[in-house]
Amino acid sequence: MIPTLAYAARDSHSPLSPYSFERRDPREDDVVIEIQYCGVCHSDIHQVRDEWGGSRFPMVPGHEIVGRVTKVGPKVKKFKVGDLAGVGCMVDSCRHCHSCEDGLEQFCENGFVGTYNSVEKDGKTPTQGGYSNNIVVRESFALRISPKLELAAVAPLLCAGITTYSPLRHWKAGPGKKVGVVGLGGLGHMGVKFARSFGAHVVLFTTSPGKVEDAKRLGAHEVVISKDPKQMNEHAGTFDFILDTVSGPHDLNAYIHLLKRDGTMTLVGLPDKPPELPAFGLVMQRKSLAGSLIGGIKETQEMLDYCADHGITSDIEMIPIQKINEAYERMMRSDVKYRFVIDLASLKQ
Amino acid sequence: MIPTLAYAARDSHSPLSPYSFERRDPREDDVVIEIQYCGVCHSDIHQVRDEWGGSRFPMVPGHEIVGRVTKVGPKVKKFKVGDLAGVGCMVDSCRHCHSCEDGLEQFCENGFVGTYNSVEKDGKTPTQGGYSNNIVVRESFALRISPKLELAAVAPLLCAGITTYSPLRHWKAGPGKKVGVVGLGGLGHMGVKFARSFGAHVVLFTTSPGKVEDAKRLGAHEVVISKDPKQMNEHAGTFDFILDTVSGPHDLNAYIHLLKRDGTMTLVGLPDKPPELPAFGLVMQRKSLAGSLIGGIKETQEMLDYCADHGITSDIEMIPIQKINEAYERMMRSDVKYRFVIDLASLKQ
Repeated sequence: MIPTLAYAARDSHSPLSPYSFERRDPREDDVVIEIQYCGVCHSDIHQVRDEWGGSRFPMVPGHEIVGRVTKVGPKVKKFKVGDLAGVGCMVDSCRHCHSCEDGLEQFCENGFVGTYNSVEKDGKTPTQGGYSNNIVVRESFALRISPKLELAAVAPLLCAGITTYSPLRHWKAGPGKKVGVVGLGGLGHMGVKFARSFGAHVVLFTTSPGKVEDAKRLGAHEVVISKDPKQMNEHAGTFDFILDTVSGPHDLNAYIHLLKRDGTMTLVGLPDKPPELPAFGLVMQRKSLAGSLIGGIKETQEMLDYCADHGITSDIEMIPIQKINEAYERMMRSDVKYRFVIDLASLKQ
Repeated sequence: MIPTLAYAARDSHSPLSPYSFERRDPREDDVVIEIQYCGVCHSDIHQVRDEWGGSRFPMVPGHEIVGRVTKVGPKVKKFKVGDLAGVGCMVDSCRHCHSCEDGLEQFCENGFVGTYNSVEKDGKTPTQGGYSNNIVVRESFALRISPKLELAAVAPLLCAGITTYSPLRHWKAGPGKKVGVVGLGGLGHMGVKFARSFGAHVVLFTTSPGKVEDAKRLGAHEVVISKDPKQMNEHAGTFDFILDTVSGPHDLNAYIHLLKRDGTMTLVGLPDKPPELPAFGLVMQRKSLAGSLIGGIKETQEMLDYCADHGITSDIEMIPIQKINEAYERMMRSDVKYRFVIDLASLKQ
């Protein structure tokens, strides 16, 4: 077994604190990754605080993991010791259902294994995430990472990156398309970067006038203050696609109204309370409201390779693990530009 | 001017009663149609009772109109006197926006002119519908009707028919696809007939065990009692497409759950109260919830030609105009199989 240092939540209401546990010895097709950086996702907070129900404690969060391979099983082909590697939201799936065969493990019909707060396919071993100094993962769920990019700023691509890249590709954001991104947080700022890079005309929606300049720096052609009905109305019926990254309460009708006929708005966050269905807007112009969930392993690799080729990373603020509880508080106030990344070297302090 | 006999609603709470008014003399590109039959749509009741707001009285309802051409303007090319002709939900549109140019007048960006309870493009003349003995309409909004079919049973195709045909075509119901139809009323029974005719595997959802045999007669391969969670669960994750024809309150989550990954559920009715958005189901399997509204003139003609070629009509119950108020009451109790059609010869009684 491999001794592991980590920070864990012991229950749904206490701060995260140091925790030691053991990872399995690598199986034939496992790689062991020494974790260097791990992004901090809003879903880490939801799960630590048991806001979605069913949380398992102690819980080591973190699913935006990058580091270096330190050991490989005898059947591993994709990695050798010393390679950079990443792990996103999944560490396993059934690998034989239609979705898995289609490379869409996030939609595994038998349920994928989450990187933390989940149970391995043995039905008993809890999974533990990247707020730790190592992880052991089946090589087919590890991603190759290019040395071309700043490693810490790559970490958030493993969740925030693929969560926005996948729907923008699926609904064909690109040249000639007008694409909206709702919200400028960890997901939204990646959505703006990708949509711009894909050649779309990009409009960022935010409630914060203070984010206008930053949104333009990140790639938005236009920024709309979504609380201003006049600004909103100027875009009525003009969008091919809108990516909604906001999970807090907001009026979906206002955005459906901005879509062209046959346009689609896609949610990538789960609203805390179910919003009202904008039925009138959908029917009156044959519009669609859809959802999207991270992306499959194949597409995650494609996204990482695309980012390496196009110099795309996340805007990050680095923290030592000792600041994680403070970082959570700041995230609750949207006080981060745009993703905290933990430097796991701090675990040894 | 052309004298017209009709039944009209004088206000939102009185029964319909006899009414006389005048139609315009035909313009260059108008046809005059002597109406023989007119279907009774649930939206007639909504508008007569001002349930959607903005109703204009006196109101002659009816937008499922078939009859015979009695006069044509000098520039009319598509019709000659004596031809069968039909009129659906629209009698005009701007004819130059993107939607109109795409043959999708129902999505006219400047607003189509409804067959009744609307105003002509002159900005002042109220439109009056098919509970009357004639109508004057621009030929481009009149449909050719084949003499092969029973004329009275063709009338409901002009709304109930195209409203179900269009989304089934748009979302590609056909061989190899499993298609659900929710509700067995005027719309639903046409949805079942079309989906079956297009080669899909058809499942009808109803709350009424008494409708099972009839649904099968109409073409459903399977019938599911939607109040039975066990029956519903047996179909979880198996539908490519579900057409929801029910406008009363019902749980959309229950149907989203039955879609395959990437499946779509489409609403063709406007719910009285906005239902809750099934966000979790959409996100977790990249599903879509969409809307659809009748169909364009070109597609309506395609649908009528398809029906003539395949012997498809509506199941109807014929009534004289004098029974219209009673028919409304029966429709409110879903006591009709499956569409009332008014025999306008009764106007002369």
